Amino acid sequence: MIKPRTPPGIMELLPREQIAFQRMLDTIRRNYERFGFLPVETPVFELSETLLTKSGGETERQVYFVQSTGALANAKAAEAEAPAEGLPELALRFDLTVPLARYVAEHEHELTFPFRRYQIQRVYRGERAQRGRFREFYQCDIDVIGKDGLSTRFDAEILAVIHAVFSDLGIGEFTIQLNNRKLMRGFFEAQGVSDSEQQALVLREVDKLDKRGADYVRETLQGPDFGLPADAVQRILDFVEVRSTGHADAIAKLDTLGQGNPTLAEGVAELREVLQLVQALGVPESAYCLNFSIARGLDYYTGTVYETQLDAYPQIGSICSGGRYDNLASHYTKSKLPGVGISIGLTRLFWQLREAGLIAGSDESSVQALVALMDDASLADSLDIARRLRAAGINTEVQMEPRKLAKQFQYASRAGIRFVVLAGEDERARGAVTVKDLSREQQFEVKREELASSLKVELEQARALAGR
Amino acid sequence: MIKPRTPPGIMELLPREQIAFQRMLDTIRRNYERFGFLPVETPVFELSETLLTKSGGETERQVYFVQSTGALANAKAAEAEAPAEGLPELALRFDLTVPLARYVAEHEHELTFPFRRYQIQRVYRGERAQRGRFREFYQCDIDVIGKDGLSTRFDAEILAVIHAVFSDLGIGEFTIQLNNRKLMRGFFEAQGVSDSEQQALVLREVDKLDKRGADYVRETLQGPDFGLPADAVQRILDFVEVRSTGHADAIAKLDTLGQGNPTLAEGVAELREVLQLVQALGVPESAYCLNFSIARGLDYYTGTVYETQLDAYPQIGSICSGGRYDNLASHYTKSKLPGVGISIGLTRLFWQLREAGLIAGSDESSVQALVALMDDASLADSLDIARRLRAAGINTEVQMEPRKLAKQFQYASRAGIRFVVLAGEDERARGAVTVKDLSREQQFEVKREELASSLKVELEQARALAGR
Repeated sequence: MIKPRTPPGIMELLPREQIAFQRMLDTIRRNYERFGFLPVETPVFELSETLLTKSGGETERQVYFVQSTGALANAKAAEAEAPAEGLPELALRFDLTVPLARYVAEHEHELTFPFRRYQIQRVYRGERAQRGRFREFYQCDIDVIGKDGLSTRFDAEILAVIHAVFSDLGIGEFTIQLNNRKLMRGFFEAQGVSDSEQQALVLREVDKLDKRGADYVRETLQGPDFGLPADAVQRILDFVEVRSTGHADAIAKLDTLGQGNPTLAEGVAELREVLQLVQALGVPESAYCLNFSIARGLDYYTGTVYETQLDAYPQIGSICSGGRYDNLASHYTKSKLPGVGISIGLTRLFWQLREAGLIAGSDESSVQALVALMDDASLADSLDIARRLRAAGINTEVQMEPRKLAKQFQYASRAGIRFVVLAGEDERARGAVTVKDLSREQQFEVKREELASSLKVELEQARALAGR
Repeated sequence: MIKPRTPPGIMELLPREQIAFQRMLDTIRRNYERFGFLPVETPVFELSETLLTKSGGETERQVYFVQSTGALANAKAAEAEAPAEGLPELALRFDLTVPLARYVAEHEHELTFPFRRYQIQRVYRGERAQRGRFREFYQCDIDVIGKDGLSTRFDAEILAVIHAVFSDLGIGEFTIQLNNRKLMRGFFEAQGVSDSEQQALVLREVDKLDKRGADYVRETLQGPDFGLPADAVQRILDFVEVRSTGHADAIAKLDTLGQGNPTLAEGVAELREVLQLVQALGVPESAYCLNFSIARGLDYYTGTVYETQLDAYPQIGSICSGGRYDNLASHYTKSKLPGVGISIGLTRLFWQLREAGLIAGSDESSVQALVALMDDASLADSLDIARRLRAAGINTEVQMEPRKLAKQFQYASRAGIRFVVLAGEDERARGAVTVKDLSREQQFEVKREELASSLKVELEQARALAGR
């Protein structure tokens, strides 16, 4: 006998939680599709040479390699003679960006650009086992990829998608924080920090503001490692604390930056365009703000960058991040493919929401009705009732073996099934059924032929109330 | 520069095909949920000791092992001294049955039995690379798991699910072929073939009927290897050719078998019950038949077995198979967990349907409307129109940069987008928009505030026509 165990670092859900998780996945997908993004799925593994084009990063040290039994046997046989050269042929994807780059480069001539794609799949990282860190987790990504160029307008559209997704998920108020890498770069250059590595180091110090305080950061930046003049340091500290409140204030904050230098001016112009279109897209101004401290991956993003925070749970960190990049697939093609995209790490988000008590796991089941069974003689009748409910689009379970009615109600209640349908002898004689609505704690009798439509009305109402 | 390549043995789809594939997945899931099955997802890898409980099978030789970068480095370091002992810690799942067994055993006390679960995930097999054989493919499974016992009634429900799924998929007429392992076993025992291994060997010979003809099979079974009497062989050949046509004929075919021995009688009784309930579940009699040649995995299934054939494409083989088993998780728990289930291998089915020209890949896109862009000045207006359409649940793309109108129509047409919405200056002045319906080749003008509802009506009609 082997002890049944899930591998460490995995979030495996019970059915009730899986239903809640699936609803979130469906909501994200629905909103991605709403904005015209097309589905793509790539294999769980890529050729190692494809996946590991960049060398040395943190991510690469966490890669899972894959070997078929045959390859393994060969490797073992070869072991006695000489250590096997090179890496295994296959590796599990650690994000959806590298597979997207490979996909777009491979199918370049079969795709239409700008190419809007969404991809919702699991990715794999050999993280150190730790609470809330997962080795397998869902990423829900969208990207728009242009050929040679891509209008900044898409940066605004992406923001509107983030807004639509999180409004629809209904997990509380949130704010999409915006910045622009050109604006940052231009600003730092104006302060005499022109080297991008040096900028990254300054930003790392600035990140310590919350923990170590302004004095500590000021001293470091003025100290021997950086040697920045006091007034430049003050301007940097003021800059990274900029947060806008409302649309007009965001525009005003941009105006005060002036035209400094061409890079700064370009960044300001891009952000201004994004803000303007975001308004046209109907995103309420309470949902976004400027935050000049947001940098994201410095070596990757080149324009707009996004982070998203739950207003009531800032400690959760960014729940949806991304930005604009200059060239998606330089490792695989000579074509220049600029893009803009975001990613939602749903596994971690779900875990955090559950930890915060925001996912009850006591929602309604995906099963909407249970047809109770009074006795063996009425089974055929129960099956017929279920058939009609299903034909009307109602997810229905049948009690297949007789059991005390109280137990059947208890089961439905625990499982989160809203309706229990009963057809006793009396009701059958009247051509009727009794419905117990467990969510409203009501009971009513309805004609058989009207059962499905009356439950549908109730379910539609509930759906409308829940905003689904 | 690295050549972008998909690993061999993978079916990767372009967006249009992915939309068609996703529709099939959604249809399967919708029907599984309709019958009250609950979602389960398990990790892509399991602990090797969990996955490889049975030793030596074909499947095990095809297992993919997974190693993190750290483990690989350790293994290489250790190589010089001594060959690594044992297997890598993790392996990719090769089906959804072993993960289900582990899941049910691990969460036994948190689940309610009978436990109805569906699981739609990819599985991995190191198949020899070959046309139409895939190393990564979707399985879409349902199972009902009982504790200690499970009524035969569920066997009928599973058949009704198969019927619902393939009716809804709309890929042509199909027949669900039914048999029962007890009936088979009882019958073979009555012919003097009581050893189950021997039964398997006889069935393997019988499988050659199509290719080698009855005389060849007859000679083999009467020959030295089997030594069966001529009349027993004749009864076997007659038996495996039994196919029923219609419900009454199926019952009659069962009646003629008589009560032979207790095992046969039990199988007959089970099949009879299944047939009777299938009728109550509203499955038309044209959709199922008895086929006494169907055996499936002899060491696994113990009662009802199913195969499903497309009537017009029998050469595709079974597109949905499964059956009843006595004990799901004997490797992981002492609890007795009988079950019944089926699996649809959607990747292979999709590939076969495409090969047969049954999937055009020219279906409608998931994008339903394109808001055309006349000039830069009207962008904000386009975005506003799109916002209203999306709010009404219509998947909408906006042309973000001006382009010749003819190109915009061409794009929509090629992409399978049904509606193109235009708002020129004239229309704007009238508070109206023009809609081109590419599928009907019609054009109409509609008031702005009525646009969303009028497109919704059109889309609902199309959906109703398509039976979705």
